[in-house]
Amino acid sequence: MEHKIIYLDNNATTKVDEHVLEAMLPYLKKYYANPSSMYSFGGIAQRAIIEAREQIREFVHAKSSKEIFFTSCGSESANMAIKGVLASEKTKKHIITTKVEHPCVLNLYKTLEKEGYKVDYIGVNAHGDLELEELANAVNENTALVSCMWANNETGIIFPIEKISQIVKSKNKDTKIFVDAVQAAGKIPMDVQSADIDLMAISGHKFHAPKGVGALYVKSGTLFTPLIVGGHQERGKRAGTENVPYIVGIGKAAQLAKEGLVHEATEVKRLRDKLESNILKTVFNSRLNSGVANRVPNTTNIGFEYIEGELILLHLSDCGICASSGSACTSGSLEPSHVLKAMGTPFTALHGSIRFSLSRFTTEKEIDFVLAVMPRIIKKLIKISPFQNKLEILKKHKTHVN
Amino acid sequence: MEHKIIYLDNNATTKVDEHVLEAMLPYLKKYYANPSSMYSFGGIAQRAIIEAREQIREFVHAKSSKEIFFTSCGSESANMAIKGVLASEKTKKHIITTKVEHPCVLNLYKTLEKEGYKVDYIGVNAHGDLELEELANAVNENTALVSCMWANNETGIIFPIEKISQIVKSKNKDTKIFVDAVQAAGKIPMDVQSADIDLMAISGHKFHAPKGVGALYVKSGTLFTPLIVGGHQERGKRAGTENVPYIVGIGKAAQLAKEGLVHEATEVKRLRDKLESNILKTVFNSRLNSGVANRVPNTTNIGFEYIEGELILLHLSDCGICASSGSACTSGSLEPSHVLKAMGTPFTALHGSIRFSLSRFTTEKEIDFVLAVMPRIIKKLIKISPFQNKLEILKKHKTHVN
Repeated sequence: MEHKIIYLDNNATTKVDEHVLEAMLPYLKKYYANPSSMYSFGGIAQRAIIEAREQIREFVHAKSSKEIFFTSCGSESANMAIKGVLASEKTKKHIITTKVEHPCVLNLYKTLEKEGYKVDYIGVNAHGDLELEELANAVNENTALVSCMWANNETGIIFPIEKISQIVKSKNKDTKIFVDAVQAAGKIPMDVQSADIDLMAISGHKFHAPKGVGALYVKSGTLFTPLIVGGHQERGKRAGTENVPYIVGIGKAAQLAKEGLVHEATEVKRLRDKLESNILKTVFNSRLNSGVANRVPNTTNIGFEYIEGELILLHLSDCGICASSGSACTSGSLEPSHVLKAMGTPFTALHGSIRFSLSRFTTEKEIDFVLAVMPRIIKKLIKISPFQNKLEILKKHKTHVN
Repeated sequence: MEHKIIYLDNNATTKVDEHVLEAMLPYLKKYYANPSSMYSFGGIAQRAIIEAREQIREFVHAKSSKEIFFTSCGSESANMAIKGVLASEKTKKHIITTKVEHPCVLNLYKTLEKEGYKVDYIGVNAHGDLELEELANAVNENTALVSCMWANNETGIIFPIEKISQIVKSKNKDTKIFVDAVQAAGKIPMDVQSADIDLMAISGHKFHAPKGVGALYVKSGTLFTPLIVGGHQERGKRAGTENVPYIVGIGKAAQLAKEGLVHEATEVKRLRDKLESNILKTVFNSRLNSGVANRVPNTTNIGFEYIEGELILLHLSDCGICASSGSACTSGSLEPSHVLKAMGTPFTALHGSIRFSLSRFTTEKEIDFVLAVMPRIIKKLIKISPFQNKLEILKKHKTHVN
């Protein structure tokens, strides 16, 4: 790597905050005991876990730290929540989710359909907002679970979880609500109590903890069957010797993320808006793939019509700029984004859409650099685009509008 | 913690080797990209995973690194293997395991029994050796899985996996063999090919990688259904953004463990034997809870008749010595060890049994210290034992024998 890296792919993963690493290191070095051990050396690790659990409780505003379970990632949290609830409620075979969920969650529902579940996928409008009426109509007495993301990984669009919960519970108070909050965590305030959520998954590496640790909130009293059966860890709900260093890490990262929410909403948002508005202004074939309202502050998804997203990424990568198209979990696939498709994004922009996702470590200088190179890259790719006629028409139209 | 810690509980967990931590740190600091990313920055993480997978392949002597899957712990590996094989072979409802498996595995079988599986638990003799005839008789055409540990966590006793595999396959060649090699890894050589194993679980934190990473070997061609469904990671068999630092860590730890096998078999064994023989010589109410043959080199399990194990541990802890009774996963429980019970260990020693498990970091000085304090601790506890008469008889008898 010769280039300095400009990392604008923070929805894929984030850099571990140095304060998080600092908090973790003693548990990777000195305090290595198994927290289940009887001797006092084990007590040090045990107390560290208790503190981290409390930090996560505060982060999601759970009533009790007993409602927090540590896992190895967001995917495990989601699998544990969804399979766990369904296994404890075997008579109800109806699930509702959305068309724009993370592929991890959607793939799980595809496998559940094969096992006999009926899954309804609620759509979104052109701005990415969930069709709430469609949701209300879908809930019935057989609905075991409504599964909905808090913020979309590709567009950053925020779903109104509190309202969704109200709609669902008013139709069927026994239906459980699982929220994939992986992309909301650290970007916007979360309150599982006021939102009336039953289960919620978060993933540490999306808010500056390492990859390989997640958490699951389960409202007290919610029945669920463990995914990983074995030892008594996590109150019998998740077996396996606790990953003490990473648990300490996600706790510390949650604390920092909570403290940093104002910074996200102001400074990170300012830089995102600057990046976004300047690209939209200077690149004639660009379009914003979402409404501007109700987005997390760090994400923008911009379509470049008639050119290939993968080529843009390649040229950005050559300049040391990390961005993405779609989710990292589907990269390598040639299918266009299911999220943009669900929003009715025109075919002309579907293949040329790029997500930039910032973090608290993003600097103004980095944004300026991206703004400097982006028009050049697009100009070059327009030249080799096979859709020259269409681009000409678009250019005239846009110039006219401006 | 005022005392210097003398850590003789390496079957519960181990210290992270500083070379392992050193190998991991760049991925906790600089190379934080999501390995699934398109840009070259992601390629660094991707290549690190490829190298680690190859290190694990060498460690277990798999044919191909495609047979290695990274997980978050031994428990996940076991759940993934067992549930994964059974879900892909739904017509066969018979499982065979042993009475002395790790509680994690046994608990899983208890839940599978509730789901309609018939599980046979094969016993062991007084030395801890598996009843192979009982095993041979148990295998039938409906046997989906034989699940057996390689080395026992409490006694260190090694099961003859190669022979077990031959017995099982000769009775039913379609029966899959899952080996829990968590306690064998790093202590004795392992060869999944010569042992003819279908699936095998290992856990990094038992051989000086951190807690929170494991691996599962699955022989090429073995059908299994994923436990954590979602993204394409681990070739679609285990979703979740890869824990790159820990994957690098377990790879490095495996390499070091493989290189250290001779040291285990000589120096670690020498210290274990010294500890064991001296305790047996100097403490009159002590007995070895296993045969001496076929044990991993680092483990000894000694019973102290008519006194309480928890009290011994407490006094050892006061001296800074970490040891254990039973497995860490069941600590806090008052039930005596199911392993020792299966071996027919007399009731008089069952509650007073202590496991010492050494590592390559154990020093002669530490062993000498334990040997100095142990007789004093036992003497003190004998004084307060309610079984004075029995102890008197035992003492006379033992003195006579000596």
